[in-house]
Amino acid sequence: MSEQHVRNRPASHVIDAAVRELTAKFGNQVVTSQAVRHQHGHNLSWTPNQSPDAVVYPQSTEEVAEIVRICLSHDVPVIPFGTGTSLEGHVNAPYGGVSVDVSQMKEILAVNVDDLDCVVQPGVTRKALNDYLRDTGLFFPIDPGADASIGGMTSTRASGTNAVRYGTMKDNVLSLTVVTPDGKIVKTARRARKSSAGYDLTRLFVGAEGTLGIITEITLRLYGIPEAISAATCQFPTLKAACDTVIETIQSGLGIARIEFVDEMSVRAMNNYSKLGLAEVPTLFLEFHGTEAGVEEQVKRFGEMAAERGGGPFTWATKPEDRNKMWQARHDMFWAMQTLKPRPDMSSFATDVCVPISRLADCVTETQKDAEQHGVISAILGHVGDGNFHSGPVFDPKDPADVAKAQAFAERLVDRALKMGGTCTGEHGVGQAKIKFMKVEHSPETLDLMRTIKRAIDPKNIMNPGKVLDA
Amino acid sequence: MSEQHVRNRPASHVIDAAVRELTAKFGNQVVTSQAVRHQHGHNLSWTPNQSPDAVVYPQSTEEVAEIVRICLSHDVPVIPFGTGTSLEGHVNAPYGGVSVDVSQMKEILAVNVDDLDCVVQPGVTRKALNDYLRDTGLFFPIDPGADASIGGMTSTRASGTNAVRYGTMKDNVLSLTVVTPDGKIVKTARRARKSSAGYDLTRLFVGAEGTLGIITEITLRLYGIPEAISAATCQFPTLKAACDTVIETIQSGLGIARIEFVDEMSVRAMNNYSKLGLAEVPTLFLEFHGTEAGVEEQVKRFGEMAAERGGGPFTWATKPEDRNKMWQARHDMFWAMQTLKPRPDMSSFATDVCVPISRLADCVTETQKDAEQHGVISAILGHVGDGNFHSGPVFDPKDPADVAKAQAFAERLVDRALKMGGTCTGEHGVGQAKIKFMKVEHSPETLDLMRTIKRAIDPKNIMNPGKVLDA
Repeated sequence: MSEQHVRNRPASHVIDAAVRELTAKFGNQVVTSQAVRHQHGHNLSWTPNQSPDAVVYPQSTEEVAEIVRICLSHDVPVIPFGTGTSLEGHVNAPYGGVSVDVSQMKEILAVNVDDLDCVVQPGVTRKALNDYLRDTGLFFPIDPGADASIGGMTSTRASGTNAVRYGTMKDNVLSLTVVTPDGKIVKTARRARKSSAGYDLTRLFVGAEGTLGIITEITLRLYGIPEAISAATCQFPTLKAACDTVIETIQSGLGIARIEFVDEMSVRAMNNYSKLGLAEVPTLFLEFHGTEAGVEEQVKRFGEMAAERGGGPFTWATKPEDRNKMWQARHDMFWAMQTLKPRPDMSSFATDVCVPISRLADCVTETQKDAEQHGVISAILGHVGDGNFHSGPVFDPKDPADVAKAQAFAERLVDRALKMGGTCTGEHGVGQAKIKFMKVEHSPETLDLMRTIKRAIDPKNIMNPGKVLDA
Repeated sequence: MSEQHVRNRPASHVIDAAVRELTAKFGNQVVTSQAVRHQHGHNLSWTPNQSPDAVVYPQSTEEVAEIVRICLSHDVPVIPFGTGTSLEGHVNAPYGGVSVDVSQMKEILAVNVDDLDCVVQPGVTRKALNDYLRDTGLFFPIDPGADASIGGMTSTRASGTNAVRYGTMKDNVLSLTVVTPDGKIVKTARRARKSSAGYDLTRLFVGAEGTLGIITEITLRLYGIPEAISAATCQFPTLKAACDTVIETIQSGLGIARIEFVDEMSVRAMNNYSKLGLAEVPTLFLEFHGTEAGVEEQVKRFGEMAAERGGGPFTWATKPEDRNKMWQARHDMFWAMQTLKPRPDMSSFATDVCVPISRLADCVTETQKDAEQHGVISAILGHVGDGNFHSGPVFDPKDPADVAKAQAFAERLVDRALKMGGTCTGEHGVGQAKIKFMKVEHSPETLDLMRTIKRAIDPKNIMNPGKVLDA
């Protein structure tokens, strides 16, 4: 099989020619101001800003195809951009090129209530979609912390707090329209709920981080809002008690909808930022979905399993506004973590790993010890039903030794997860920052197969180069 | 992009040389008897027998890799074989070559109870797996009619009666070990419940029908056996009443586990074969999973929704043996359909389509009318929660006009489903028999992308040639 083809930054006269052609075609949809380019070369990760040479705002699939064809003809990189909230360096432009910002493609094209699906453009955000769905009795469950775009969530194979019951983006995309690196428009599948008609092109693009094409339309599964929803926090004497309760809950087939772990330090951060007033001990955030009596019984059974391990009692969030406050606090953890900084000029970054759930307590405990030993401030929280957790080390960006210390902590975290049969990222993606771990996680044969696919679909390596796979 | 490369049947001296080399290496694991070759060139479809030149029974991933390397060096086709129960011509050898029968690779390599997963060899069947799991409190839900191999079920993206709650093979494979057409061994992913670490190679092989490699190990999700299970049949005055009840059930988020439709003629076939004694009217087979009170309430709510449309009452199968009898009758439908034959020398084949659920009643009604108009005997039944249904036209294999009539009926069924936004196969796969529909279902660009992937991974087209994509 094949080695990844090297990509170089195009010469400036090449870029100029491409931008001229784009401007002739798209007028003021093409922006080259320093501020806009800078904004598009940045994200919430600690990777340095790498600005594109131009930003284009397409309005339609056909316009995206035209942009890609122009860039291809000049051999200029194309970088898809949604809301820029990714965490591992997905939208930066290490080889320059054209950022294709889909934020103006934010139409909800269809909602098929009887079929429980909808068709959206990639710039629609998850909150905008759920606002739009409010009167239909349906909802879309995937909820990363940020109000990310559906296109970006598809590209990073995102998940969130509902994954234990509703799955990740991989499970909830029925079909995609994609502009491939040759400027063609490919519809990956029909709208039927399932199909065995050929290769799963849908899943090929979900999680490909824009390296195989630009997603321009997404057909999503929707779900009926359950008749009854109860949410609560439940506190535990130890992390292990919390994890063991989770394992038993899932084995029992209770069908819990959300089950989120926050460690002592995370609770402190949440108390700082969201005024929750919780005791600073290991805590689960829970949500039960079902019929009235079904939810009542789930709660009772969970309560028994928790009590056996010293957990409880529950603090209920019964009113919708209390429930929203509780989950908003969970979603705001990226910002809450900033309150753990000893000084305001310090920084932090978010990383994530995922391990088989039986190893979760071990992995979190060892990570907490590691932080203590090395003097790293880092809260831990996660989607405990999936074995997926996050850590956000705090560091001083002006002190190279401190930066290195935080990075080394994150690298040990990944090594630890991989040794336990886990993965270097459960939901954030590879971007630039985790490319180095791909070699540890996957065998040379596995990476070779990924490169073979990339080279076959994008022979000139114009599509988001420098992400997912190394050069 | 690329055209599919043509494949020819190798010259007999080439085949002989390959078989000699295989025999030198694998001794009596290589079989060339007429009877065994014939058995491996056949399946439950109406496609003609196309025997391989030899059958090899590997014992391990390494042996599969060695077989593939030998076949590749001679440019001889390789056809993976599980239990031979596929329905669209997946295991036939249209270009001759070597059938790789994995039935001796039937070890359950690991069951990780706390992680709710297991690792199996491809020859393990779904019933063997669930028998093995019985004492763990866990089960594997995917259940095509036949006791198929897990390898074959993975390769056809199979599903069955539990898909509405538990998904299909696509949703339940965590990782695969695959021997690629170059004889390398690729592990697609780690055992973690979810990952965003690179391209989704797992889903690339799920449903690829052995055209991209041979699956030699499968890591599967398992589920806790629910505390309470209730099963029932519920009869309706019309098909539309049944379908509308299903749509409302799913919208309401009730979390029903199985919801299967059988039409009047299917009930007659089931009564013939399994002595169910049901009235010959549109009928739903239902199963509710959850806690005791939760199931009770689901049943009550479903009963209300059914009654509003004239459905009911329920006939309960509360004892496990009654429940097993009821579902066995559903799984035996392929055989029950044979009882609809006016003469024992007549034949029938099974076909499947899947449409958005809002179109299901229309699609089934039009298909029933079509059968009546054209004098085709064909029962209809399906996984109504997914919009997926089956039809089994009866025909006289010795009468070319009757064969053509049955085939034309099946083709009109596919056309009808495609016009309604559906797919030419929800769970059986493409094999040989549905290749012609791929051009109708997918655009030239979409098929081109599939061919690009096939050519990149299998440049010599040795892996199950003549399936999924045309030459």
